[in-house]
Amino acid sequence: MADTLSALRSLMASHSPPLHALVVPSEDYHQSEYVSGRDKRRQFVSGFTGSAGLALITKDEALLWTDGRYFLQAEQQLSDQWKLMRMAEDPAVDIWMADNLPKDAAIGVDPWCISIDTAQRWERAFAKNQQKLVQTTKNLVDEVWTNRPPAEINAVTVQPLKFAGRSVTDKLKDLRKKLVQEHARGIIFTTLDEVAWLYNIRGNDVAYCPVVHAFAIVTSNSAFIYLDTRKLSIEVKTHLEENGIEIKEYTSVSFDVALLATDELDSVSTGTLAEVSKESAKIPSETHKSVNGKHQAGENSSNFIWADPGSCCFALYSKLNPDTVLLQQSPLALPKALKNPVELDGLRKAHIRDGAAVVQYLVWLDKKMQEIYGASGYFLEENSVKKEKHLKPLKLTEVTVSDKLEEFRASKEHFRGLSFPTISSVGPNAAIIHYSPQADTCAELDPDKIYLFDSGAQYLDGTTDITRTVHFGRPSDHEKSCYTAVLKGHIALGNAKFPNGTNGHTLDILARIPLWNYGLDYRHGTGHGIGSYLNVHEGPQLISFRIRNVPLQSSMTVTDEPGYYEDGEFGIRLENVLIVKEADTKFNFGDKGYLSFEHITWAPYQTKLIDLNLLNPEEINWLNSYHSKCRDILAPYLDEAENAWLKKATQPVAV
Amino acid sequence: MADTLSALRSLMASHSPPLHALVVPSEDYHQSEYVSGRDKRRQFVSGFTGSAGLALITKDEALLWTDGRYFLQAEQQLSDQWKLMRMAEDPAVDIWMADNLPKDAAIGVDPWCISIDTAQRWERAFAKNQQKLVQTTKNLVDEVWTNRPPAEINAVTVQPLKFAGRSVTDKLKDLRKKLVQEHARGIIFTTLDEVAWLYNIRGNDVAYCPVVHAFAIVTSNSAFIYLDTRKLSIEVKTHLEENGIEIKEYTSVSFDVALLATDELDSVSTGTLAEVSKESAKIPSETHKSVNGKHQAGENSSNFIWADPGSCCFALYSKLNPDTVLLQQSPLALPKALKNPVELDGLRKAHIRDGAAVVQYLVWLDKKMQEIYGASGYFLEENSVKKEKHLKPLKLTEVTVSDKLEEFRASKEHFRGLSFPTISSVGPNAAIIHYSPQADTCAELDPDKIYLFDSGAQYLDGTTDITRTVHFGRPSDHEKSCYTAVLKGHIALGNAKFPNGTNGHTLDILARIPLWNYGLDYRHGTGHGIGSYLNVHEGPQLISFRIRNVPLQSSMTVTDEPGYYEDGEFGIRLENVLIVKEADTKFNFGDKGYLSFEHITWAPYQTKLIDLNLLNPEEINWLNSYHSKCRDILAPYLDEAENAWLKKATQPVAV
Repeated sequence: MADTLSALRSLMASHSPPLHALVVPSEDYHQSEYVSGRDKRRQFVSGFTGSAGLALITKDEALLWTDGRYFLQAEQQLSDQWKLMRMAEDPAVDIWMADNLPKDAAIGVDPWCISIDTAQRWERAFAKNQQKLVQTTKNLVDEVWTNRPPAEINAVTVQPLKFAGRSVTDKLKDLRKKLVQEHARGIIFTTLDEVAWLYNIRGNDVAYCPVVHAFAIVTSNSAFIYLDTRKLSIEVKTHLEENGIEIKEYTSVSFDVALLATDELDSVSTGTLAEVSKESAKIPSETHKSVNGKHQAGENSSNFIWADPGSCCFALYSKLNPDTVLLQQSPLALPKALKNPVELDGLRKAHIRDGAAVVQYLVWLDKKMQEIYGASGYFLEENSVKKEKHLKPLKLTEVTVSDKLEEFRASKEHFRGLSFPTISSVGPNAAIIHYSPQADTCAELDPDKIYLFDSGAQYLDGTTDITRTVHFGRPSDHEKSCYTAVLKGHIALGNAKFPNGTNGHTLDILARIPLWNYGLDYRHGTGHGIGSYLNVHEGPQLISFRIRNVPLQSSMTVTDEPGYYEDGEFGIRLENVLIVKEADTKFNFGDKGYLSFEHITWAPYQTKLIDLNLLNPEEINWLNSYHSKCRDILAPYLDEAENAWLKKATQPVAV
Repeated sequence: MADTLSALRSLMASHSPPLHALVVPSEDYHQSEYVSGRDKRRQFVSGFTGSAGLALITKDEALLWTDGRYFLQAEQQLSDQWKLMRMAEDPAVDIWMADNLPKDAAIGVDPWCISIDTAQRWERAFAKNQQKLVQTTKNLVDEVWTNRPPAEINAVTVQPLKFAGRSVTDKLKDLRKKLVQEHARGIIFTTLDEVAWLYNIRGNDVAYCPVVHAFAIVTSNSAFIYLDTRKLSIEVKTHLEENGIEIKEYTSVSFDVALLATDELDSVSTGTLAEVSKESAKIPSETHKSVNGKHQAGENSSNFIWADPGSCCFALYSKLNPDTVLLQQSPLALPKALKNPVELDGLRKAHIRDGAAVVQYLVWLDKKMQEIYGASGYFLEENSVKKEKHLKPLKLTEVTVSDKLEEFRASKEHFRGLSFPTISSVGPNAAIIHYSPQADTCAELDPDKIYLFDSGAQYLDGTTDITRTVHFGRPSDHEKSCYTAVLKGHIALGNAKFPNGTNGHTLDILARIPLWNYGLDYRHGTGHGIGSYLNVHEGPQLISFRIRNVPLQSSMTVTDEPGYYEDGEFGIRLENVLIVKEADTKFNFGDKGYLSFEHITWAPYQTKLIDLNLLNPEEINWLNSYHSKCRDILAPYLDEAENAWLKKATQPVAV
């Protein structure tokens, strides 16, 4: 890594203009949260493997910014050459650069790897010291990365209507209505899950995310996709072409955005396809009258090019005329978040199969922990009868057990892979919020320590994400109090009823109050949207201490995952996926309509870890009712022994 | 009122330039929430008496904007000539003007009556249609207001150190430190309670608020007060002069702000006084070194004039050079909100005396309701034995009973008056959130209807504000459910523990969730700060669905007052004053420090109105513990009969 930094510093010095600093963000050209191996530039230069962070290399320093989920992990992974900058505690990266880099400094970044918003915010911060953001023409990290993984040719698949629930034609129709409303004659999509969602395709270009490395442009008359065309089978090509989508090479997007800027893109679109897409463009405008049956928008007033400033890369923005760019959240963000009935049905079914896999895993793990480690087991609150570990040839590690969990999931219908790296963590490792065990360094299971697993899968009909925390021996009173506080928050959020217009920030406190009561808290948000066989983290809704003014709406998904982490000791988290639905409240004050949540995750909470004295009767009733549903819903997917175990695990507790 | 509108429209037409519209805000020259009779211009033109609202008069229309607390009242009070605009439902006034007034329209306003923030926001909104905000040289309403009340000469008093807790010298010292930090050489104060707080004076110029109509200017070397000097006794003059404050006439402020802008104000300051004030200006700068014992700030870099954009009037701002104005929240906002130990002690004591008055009132009212109306009374949940009302010569009205309540308060030590117009409301009137009963139109008490009273007083040692809701007959199940939901919210907020950095918006939902659970809500905030023998509504902290990023801090005050209002039927509200304090949490995660609340209001909740089945054990325990404290704390202030009543009212309820 020392070599990497020196090599980068040489390139920075010989760059024109010479760079005082180089920013290496975590994101790929699509501002993805999870990126492919060859796009892990920030990880390559810094050694830090977390999903979020930003590296900054100056002549003398190397700094890495990351958030609270990753403080512990970054401390462990960063070498002495690196300084950890804690987000929300240390100055933000733009403020740091503005205050610490010299006046007139040139700060380099690959403009494909940062969003418009970020670039513009930095430029504003830099202005006060006459510093400049310099777009490097090549990615300097790629230049020094000798063993960079090659690009893969992963097959694209069609997401059939029976899972997608809405046709490409209909989605394009809805989209073009919005273009007309906003006086836009074209829009650029760079976010991978938006391209996949809009065109009803899936891929395999990024581990855990069934997306394709692709851009898209949609205009009033045409629709384009930019990708490595070798990934397309005849079937997928036909699907795209039948929907009026022109297929172009990945690298053409740059040129085409320039054409779009000068309104020349449609004229180069191939004749026949343009005809097809014109068909679907005949939407009556709400703001302009249709004349002679021909849509007039775009001829005079529809002159904007729409780009989402939070996701579109600065490189493409730089090809547009800033005066005619509409910087506004993508019109696909909300339609993608508002699941259609087919997607909701798929998500419910996928979560039932997934819950069955989790229960099977718990049954297996319970048995193994007793056999191998003399654990008292999932049910008994007793000290383990310790066995001499080294006498046993078989041992369970965080990685081997998570492989077993994957095996149970893989046996289920429609399984396509995991939805994120399984967090399988024993004792102190569970306090590392986004811990990812490695086969050679991971810990062994321990009957006297808490075990936390946060995992999920991709199924053709839906994406899952669940966390449970268990103990196979005798948990301490403190562990039980903390588990109970987390559970109380989890229940309070999941049971909330709230008027339309309420955003996730407002609800966030419900999950924290039982912890705050002890002076405890957790350094992460409480919930995120989840995709329909797409990304496990999906916006725009969010339940967090951070304010994001996106009201929750019926048919959105959101996770409910409070936690508590005691550094060096243990971690606790409980997570279910919820669907926002209309609430059956007795009244409807203000005619706003009230919302509530439907839990779709099914797996027991370990009653041994609950201090029942701390639950109030409503909470106990909820727990018993949830457990009873768990039992009934999962029964058909489990064998007799598993059902017997589940029955015991879901025994009602006394009010 | 028709005449008023015509007269105003004539003045608008003959104005230079002619005005397309005239804005009449509720506020006086000091952006006060409560204003004196001669400043009630918006009430005079519209007939609407609520404390908040804005009138807009165009050639053909007259519109009044007000917020959710006043929708019902405004509907009742506005004549046919007026159209009610509902804030948060209808377009905001600036948007409405921009969209509905003609291009190039001239919109007039008295620049003394709007804040810098408002004026600038409107100017931005108007820009898109080339409309202009015109500052009228005279207040047009005053021109047509023939019977406008004359200015009063109300005596100013000194607030002695034993109640204020901090000397003027110390407050000026703290203030000048902040001026140095912010590179400001002077600051303008227009907010009445800030002037009163800074100079430790009180007055009687605005009903319910012990403030003086005054402006203040403080520079590094001088301090000024601008007021009708006939209000000053020798004692007060001496107090001001001893603290180095120069006394000037109210109307001189305009001229002096112009001098301040050109840095000529200090040179006109009278010699001797300037010497005194220079003494208190010798504060070591944190950003500039002291040279030869003489403070150098202001000679080069301290060039800004500080004005709070939310409260300083546009008229004074217009006299400044915009390039050297520091638009930032007043540096007194936080020190005034953070009560010192003497103020906290005073507030606690004032609330005990006030609570005793409230209990005496309830005892009296309980007896009268039984005697006059045959009510079953405060304790019995039975139908009243109706008596023929007209046979009784005595009757109780909302006004006569609130007079009695004032009488009980007036008998207490340090009483100086009420802190706001008592809301004394029977049945449907209680649904009018800021209802103010009038002797000639108010309702009679009714043993079969809910009675809500929200009231408070000014005592030399603190300001109080309390709401209780009671029923002297048999409340309906629905009324009990609603009362219980309001109580649950009130308890949940009051019991919250939360980390430092948490703002009131985040806590707001705690008071609403039990109501949301039924699909119910209330259209007002949940809590406001309260003054120390100052305004009953005090910022900058706020507990509200509105986001205001002011973290709650230890020693702030805040009310806890959720409610529920059923139009035409009844209203419920419960309100205590809380002091923010450090919490005694078991842990201190993240080393943030945790906060909680101390209730300082003492009066029973009517257990007859509580559906005990809906309270969980923690809530019942809290209720019993609060009631037990009530009994003990108030006992010394009550006679035997009153104590017996209170004992009964605070009987523990079973878990």
